[in-house]
Amino acid sequence: MTAQASGAHLLLSSAHAMGVRVCFANPGTTELAIVRALDSVEGIRPILGLFEGVCTGAADGYGRLTGVPALTLLHLGPGFANGLANLHNARRAHTPIINIIGDHATWHLRYDAPLTSDISKLAMWVSSQVIQVRATEEIPRSVRMAMEDACKPPGSPVTLIAPSDIMEAPAAGMARGGEAFRRAALAEVSSGMVSAAAQAAAKGNAVLLLGGNALGERGQIAAARIAAATGARLVMESYPAIASCGGGLPRVERLAYFPQDVLSQLGSATVVLAGARAPVSYFGYPGEPSELVARERLIELSQPGEDAAQALEHLAELLPAGAAQITPSPESEKPALSGALTPAYIAEAVVAEIAEGTIVSIEGSTCGGPYLQRAHRARRHRVMTNTGGAIGQGIPCGLGAAIAEPASRVVCVQSDGSAQYTLQALWTMAREALDITVIICANHRYGILQTELRRAGAHLDGKASASMTRLDSPRVDWVSLARGYGVPALRADAVETFRSALQMSLHTTGPYLIECELP
Amino acid sequence: MTAQASGAHLLLSSAHAMGVRVCFANPGTTELAIVRALDSVEGIRPILGLFEGVCTGAADGYGRLTGVPALTLLHLGPGFANGLANLHNARRAHTPIINIIGDHATWHLRYDAPLTSDISKLAMWVSSQVIQVRATEEIPRSVRMAMEDACKPPGSPVTLIAPSDIMEAPAAGMARGGEAFRRAALAEVSSGMVSAAAQAAAKGNAVLLLGGNALGERGQIAAARIAAATGARLVMESYPAIASCGGGLPRVERLAYFPQDVLSQLGSATVVLAGARAPVSYFGYPGEPSELVARERLIELSQPGEDAAQALEHLAELLPAGAAQITPSPESEKPALSGALTPAYIAEAVVAEIAEGTIVSIEGSTCGGPYLQRAHRARRHRVMTNTGGAIGQGIPCGLGAAIAEPASRVVCVQSDGSAQYTLQALWTMAREALDITVIICANHRYGILQTELRRAGAHLDGKASASMTRLDSPRVDWVSLARGYGVPALRADAVETFRSALQMSLHTTGPYLIECELP
Repeated sequence: MTAQASGAHLLLSSAHAMGVRVCFANPGTTELAIVRALDSVEGIRPILGLFEGVCTGAADGYGRLTGVPALTLLHLGPGFANGLANLHNARRAHTPIINIIGDHATWHLRYDAPLTSDISKLAMWVSSQVIQVRATEEIPRSVRMAMEDACKPPGSPVTLIAPSDIMEAPAAGMARGGEAFRRAALAEVSSGMVSAAAQAAAKGNAVLLLGGNALGERGQIAAARIAAATGARLVMESYPAIASCGGGLPRVERLAYFPQDVLSQLGSATVVLAGARAPVSYFGYPGEPSELVARERLIELSQPGEDAAQALEHLAELLPAGAAQITPSPESEKPALSGALTPAYIAEAVVAEIAEGTIVSIEGSTCGGPYLQRAHRARRHRVMTNTGGAIGQGIPCGLGAAIAEPASRVVCVQSDGSAQYTLQALWTMAREALDITVIICANHRYGILQTELRRAGAHLDGKASASMTRLDSPRVDWVSLARGYGVPALRADAVETFRSALQMSLHTTGPYLIECELP
Repeated sequence: MTAQASGAHLLLSSAHAMGVRVCFANPGTTELAIVRALDSVEGIRPILGLFEGVCTGAADGYGRLTGVPALTLLHLGPGFANGLANLHNARRAHTPIINIIGDHATWHLRYDAPLTSDISKLAMWVSSQVIQVRATEEIPRSVRMAMEDACKPPGSPVTLIAPSDIMEAPAAGMARGGEAFRRAALAEVSSGMVSAAAQAAAKGNAVLLLGGNALGERGQIAAARIAAATGARLVMESYPAIASCGGGLPRVERLAYFPQDVLSQLGSATVVLAGARAPVSYFGYPGEPSELVARERLIELSQPGEDAAQALEHLAELLPAGAAQITPSPESEKPALSGALTPAYIAEAVVAEIAEGTIVSIEGSTCGGPYLQRAHRARRHRVMTNTGGAIGQGIPCGLGAAIAEPASRVVCVQSDGSAQYTLQALWTMAREALDITVIICANHRYGILQTELRRAGAHLDGKASASMTRLDSPRVDWVSLARGYGVPALRADAVETFRSALQMSLHTTGPYLIECELP
């Protein structure tokens, strides 16, 4: 540290004193005072992304695992705009994140220079709070407000707009020590609510719909006890932020995607919401309902911000210990063990090969669905999924996970279409030498759109329907793309090739990409 | 056309009847009714981008050249968010564009499904008007409002939010024929204003600051006549949306970037604004002014939306014909004609090789500055630049230009850092077999940020200052990236290799990428 501490030093040292350790950055000129302060403020690791969606997606993955906000550092309105999609996902995942956006010098704003825009309007779209830094004296308080709000259960992204003149201005002192924030403890569910849910479960024909922290180990173990006592089925929300799987945890079905499938899956069961929202259709389809469980069949054990895992433990204690009577779910399809690669085989191989502690980042339905059908048979690991549907989330989220837990291997099970939105994350993986295996499930199409067109009775060979959903002309060569970013890569179209590449990558340091050619 | 015309058919046939011919799309489920309508509505070409910023940047390039709005078709709030940065540039370029965003079915919105967000808030950030389609009967009127507003001088992006249920609903009839819109004629400048500018120019020591349509052929020819009569210097705005260059058009200096350089460049001259805004600093620097010309030295010949080219013609008529007495600008550096590749050589080679009618899309200062110093020596061509500073504009803009003018070659002179934000455009170039030469000026750093750090007296070797501005570990391999997208490519580090690759690409159909390794 030099004697000339600036507003930027004060901002970063305040953030560090409150627990921030990482800054996912794609800065521009108006953020350079902050970049310079990163040179001298110890303990915040700057990690560059070549595109802002990489930074925000990485901050999401990091925050989901640690509960501690990472900073993103993004350039003015347009740079922040590029990060919005993954912040939308982070908002749905309740991930604490602090976005720092440099703004023009306060005295320069009025001249409407080319990059000027109303940043706060943009930030409000995705932040639980937007804080405008107005003077150096306010900086510690602004950072504290941001940390408090981001960490308030259930957690959320917060945006702090930092004008360059205030960041450059001399600022007295540096924050030292202080209170470290992480996502605050969830509130306790009332005992009355627990009793009501226990009574409902005891009647039989119940589904425990698990989400949020109910998909951690404690929640699932308690849920399994409830299932054993009552015969309740365990179902997870369709897109969990993070779920523990395998290693003796119970098999948990996943909530289906299309409304009719959800209706069939849940039947006439009473649905106890434990950390999950009431099921609604992902999109609205003519003649199909939006709300997929009648209100009289819903028991809201927990609300957002409440401790669903603890509530399940309390609920289990109210019930007599029982033997498991879980209605068996259909076994997942057994894939062929040689020949052409299939989604089922990819999932099966990952389940078989991953070590305890692995983090699996899933994006896309091609292999994501098959994987979650089998995850309970793997060693204990964690799965992250795309909570908000803004695609381009899986690889950055895996990148952030690898920064959060350098001792764990990360495996991205990733559809090819959605991988395109933030493929620049591969470069950061190579630069930071992160232990990540990226499995690109390459069917060279927008499969979900073709499915939707078929459901709507449309042909797939109309000029637009074909050209808007087929990605095979030319076929993207993911091995070349990976090598372009310095990530070693291999193409597999047979199960043997894939299995050996997967094994090799899981036992080699650094990133590796496997492009799986699917029919 | 089948008998079951839908809202989507009515929307597209209305747009077609009003002149729309192209739709740059990255649709999702809520846009599928529109995709299906594209199958049967003749005359609108759907072009897929793998990332939304590609679509919006392409619509910008297309609209700059044709004056006719292209559609973009983007998926809900998050998909639109990914397209915002290039819409920011389009807004600064005054490009007419109609963004179509599918929204959830109106009856589904209230359930806050994962992808739900307040799209109109986002759209207002970048659109001169946001139109919510509320019923099928309103569709033709909504499209007309959008076209009128987008085409109102000086032109702008407009956003139309189209709920999926309204797009799917039966709709009577299809629009046929009708009024074709393009950017409307600019308003005439008052004769009083022209006289005032003529008097100012006649006094000597004037600069004509050219922007907007004053950088077309008519405007420049008139400006050259004024320069010949008065000795006025010709300067172009720093970042023109589109400028004609070469083939006998006058040499026009470019306005400098840093404020002190602008002050030196303009000296004590009276500055006549012809289609350009009053010069302001790109960023605010401590101790340097934001406004770079004192108000008493500014003559605003034209306002936005006014015909600067015509005003210059009228102005020239008020002056006696004169011999050229233009203060010579310093000659551009002559590059070495063999050995290691330099930005000056790249620019020199492009200037020498491009055919009449070429469209050059410039992004980044590495080769963009050297190119514009020399553009007057080339055959007659047009140059497009990054008007708003949101990077990732150059390649998509070039893509849109190639769609607008299939008979012209497009050459992208593109910095490597900014190319990363929308590199997915390469795939669309390959798919559509567009005649585009992409020159990646690869110095493997954020050069502008290193320049700014040096100006601020900072070291470049601090841990963050180094890691946030150097892109050389690993070096991105653009040849591999291009091949990954099906675009043939070659790396050049010597002038001979570059020159022959450039010549070859300019005479071969389809896209080609040359990665220029720069020191």
